[in-house]
Amino acid sequence: MSAATIPAVPAKADQEQELIRQVMENAQAAFQLYKRIPAADRALFLENIGKEMDKMREALVAISHTETHLPVARLNGEINRTIGQANLFAALIREGSWVEAAIDTEDPNRVPAKPDTRKMLVPAGPVVVFGASNFPFAFSTAGGDTVSALASGSTVVIKGHSAHAETSKLVFTAIQKAIEASGMPPFTVQHVLGSGRIAGKELVIHPHTRGVGFTGSFAGGKALLEYVRERKMPIPVFAEMSSINPVVFLPDTLEKNAAALAKTYAGSITLGMGQFCTNPGVLLAVRGSALDNFLSLLSTEIAAIQPAPMLHTGIHAAYTDGLTAMLAQKGISVVGHAAAKAGELEATPLVASVAAADFLQNPHFTEEVFGPFSLCVICDDKQQLIDVLKSFSGQLTATVMATPADVSANTAILELLPTLAGRIILNNVPTGVEVNASMVHGGPWPATTDARFTSVGASAIKRWVRPVCFQNFSDEMLPAELQKGNPLGIWRILNNVWTKDAG
Amino acid sequence: MSAATIPAVPAKADQEQELIRQVMENAQAAFQLYKRIPAADRALFLENIGKEMDKMREALVAISHTETHLPVARLNGEINRTIGQANLFAALIREGSWVEAAIDTEDPNRVPAKPDTRKMLVPAGPVVVFGASNFPFAFSTAGGDTVSALASGSTVVIKGHSAHAETSKLVFTAIQKAIEASGMPPFTVQHVLGSGRIAGKELVIHPHTRGVGFTGSFAGGKALLEYVRERKMPIPVFAEMSSINPVVFLPDTLEKNAAALAKTYAGSITLGMGQFCTNPGVLLAVRGSALDNFLSLLSTEIAAIQPAPMLHTGIHAAYTDGLTAMLAQKGISVVGHAAAKAGELEATPLVASVAAADFLQNPHFTEEVFGPFSLCVICDDKQQLIDVLKSFSGQLTATVMATPADVSANTAILELLPTLAGRIILNNVPTGVEVNASMVHGGPWPATTDARFTSVGASAIKRWVRPVCFQNFSDEMLPAELQKGNPLGIWRILNNVWTKDAG
Repeated sequence: MSAATIPAVPAKADQEQELIRQVMENAQAAFQLYKRIPAADRALFLENIGKEMDKMREALVAISHTETHLPVARLNGEINRTIGQANLFAALIREGSWVEAAIDTEDPNRVPAKPDTRKMLVPAGPVVVFGASNFPFAFSTAGGDTVSALASGSTVVIKGHSAHAETSKLVFTAIQKAIEASGMPPFTVQHVLGSGRIAGKELVIHPHTRGVGFTGSFAGGKALLEYVRERKMPIPVFAEMSSINPVVFLPDTLEKNAAALAKTYAGSITLGMGQFCTNPGVLLAVRGSALDNFLSLLSTEIAAIQPAPMLHTGIHAAYTDGLTAMLAQKGISVVGHAAAKAGELEATPLVASVAAADFLQNPHFTEEVFGPFSLCVICDDKQQLIDVLKSFSGQLTATVMATPADVSANTAILELLPTLAGRIILNNVPTGVEVNASMVHGGPWPATTDARFTSVGASAIKRWVRPVCFQNFSDEMLPAELQKGNPLGIWRILNNVWTKDAG
Repeated sequence: MSAATIPAVPAKADQEQELIRQVMENAQAAFQLYKRIPAADRALFLENIGKEMDKMREALVAISHTETHLPVARLNGEINRTIGQANLFAALIREGSWVEAAIDTEDPNRVPAKPDTRKMLVPAGPVVVFGASNFPFAFSTAGGDTVSALASGSTVVIKGHSAHAETSKLVFTAIQKAIEASGMPPFTVQHVLGSGRIAGKELVIHPHTRGVGFTGSFAGGKALLEYVRERKMPIPVFAEMSSINPVVFLPDTLEKNAAALAKTYAGSITLGMGQFCTNPGVLLAVRGSALDNFLSLLSTEIAAIQPAPMLHTGIHAAYTDGLTAMLAQKGISVVGHAAAKAGELEATPLVASVAAADFLQNPHFTEEVFGPFSLCVICDDKQQLIDVLKSFSGQLTATVMATPADVSANTAILELLPTLAGRIILNNVPTGVEVNASMVHGGPWPATTDARFTSVGASAIKRWVRPVCFQNFSDEMLPAELQKGNPLGIWRILNNVWTKDAG
């Protein structure tokens, strides 16, 4: 096989379909080779992706800044995170316990004889990754979906995002260099551009595809689910879609810490011009002078925020239109907004408020306005605040800001949180997602298509695998992870006991 | 709340719908209590279910024998297995590592400050379990789906199978006694009968339902998936549907072990009159005198098998009709059948054969004939045998019978197995499913709706949970599994290291 190149987007739909079919055949053929490559070698490959990206950092920052308008410091930080993600999965597969190896040894004296059974997770097959517009590196070409799939032993086909196509192509050259440097099969990773409707659909419905990773809009995620329904064999779609990330401000902390809370949340609401899935889009509190004071301080903080350009014209238009539609709802009033006038492509940070009674009657208030906007829902009392919390559909995060006295007085609110979201937070902001073993970046529908998985952190690898039980296999026919001598030295469950022992 | 009783089946559809809505409200209310009950107490509850079943064993065997016609010894064995399953999940949740606790401690000196994040699996909510006709105990009322869901902290609504309704009701009384003896919320488990079309659909589409367990036909599983599509919020359906469990006989073992193989497989094909999901429905081998000899021996063995009653008239009719349709296919010929004439409700064990060329051209040959039937596909050579294997859709099991010489000469065949099935077997029969930590009773579509999960063994608990990350929570607000002192003494991943240490 020669190395994969990014094919030109064909002029006609049927040519595009044919192209995707060829790409998926390549991905399947490469999978037959790649899945047999030892974890230690896959780990080196992942680290090489990071190294190659670091080598071309200057060019990556330059082109992505042009395409996304994101600040250079943020883009450098995002490249660091992307390299860190690749290294995290390298470390994870070297450590090895992620395969959930479980062994029950034979007992020939039992009646009937008990066979030797050994289970582990194996890669399911080629994965399709859609680049995300709001993270040109960390959730795109060599982002979390790609490296978690590669770590699992799956091959990857990337559908580059049109809003940063040149960045995506350049990142892919880093992946290609890593493929070559690491001796991986040439088609381990492929990259396509083209229309979402044709290329995207063909990738999802192709019989070889075994999983889909997506971060984007609710409409986009729903469309992918609809494509899957056309398949003979269902496959999982891991779409991270929409979330308004409620934050509850309890009375004692509002009374005591209003200035700090206002400063912190003005920062969180406007971080990256609000273009994060974890942006705090709705604030909840009980009405009173403490809340009035907090909103006044928040208004002052928001007024001082400098408008900045959004990622692309589509997102900018969606923010402007979404804000206009939101502000037209009955009962809403503006709390405050950035004082400086927004220039071309720039967003105006804005906070509004609405009485809980109005909020509960109008589902429009729960719609995500993707950008630096937050809506404060003013509740008459604690019970109404609970009613508002219960009215939310699934979220990525749910946060409570509280003093110890608030916590003691509001256990009912705190106990609600785990049903609302995949990550629940006390006295922190939801923006800023740690990439580690304990992270859950996921949540009940419609935050994601599948609340059982995360798209950030070590557990993200579990999206691309399935378990296989090997019964009565002789040692030399078993994968190294399951062999009697435990040659990889990994943690396993051996006759119901966690151990690194042979067995 | 008073204890749950089995409601009478209402006369009208709208009354049945109303009944189910009430049942699901009860299940949801009980879930708010049950999910907070410590794992150690849930473990006692599970063990009590087994103890109560054991106390009423005589009555359970008597009524199930009347309803299912299964032999008394098998029914006793199945009760043992059912009690064993409950005890396995009790031990699993006492040990505690199944929650996948992962902890990353804070680093206030990092810029930005790194928060404390702690993740574990939590129960998703009420689960609906459909009883299976072929396992009146192990896959029904107090079977694997029910006890794995109860172990996870989910409440359960059982839809009893009409083919053993009285058995199901009696098992439910054992569960009720265990609920009372263990001090569990009265509606932790509920039991309904009634029509599958109305009650079944209402249970699946109810907004409180968070998961569905089913073992049965492909049509039944597909219907449940269709119901889910009517929901606003998707939920997982774990349906174990259909599998023909291919078995490859390699040439050297056919040459050397024909008599033993024939005896073993005549037993496996007709065990329980073939009414197992793991019944070997298709045998593969390369044509030649060794195969002729094996088939002749298999014919003799099958001739000696005594026909026995099937579970109910529906399954008996389906077997008779399925066999007739299969034997009408072009190219098929009967290898042998039971010599004794089948009585009322009894199945005639039968083995047939077909040339691979015919098999590959006619998809009807891959249809499951649920009962004591197996089809031998006679291949011209090894390549054709591989082609036949590749033509199969997803299976629960895939088996190879082989000598060491066969294994060395047929690595391509052995490497195909993991892509075919959830459990791959060497020199064993597929019938007989161990209930342990390493079992995978699942497989790619259409064997099940979700190849990522198993319905048998310890990992079955993973079907009813989702992860939640607790960020920056103080110790006393965390679940015991995540507290700093590790009061439950469970294995956790602490800053990327497996340990039982505090942290």
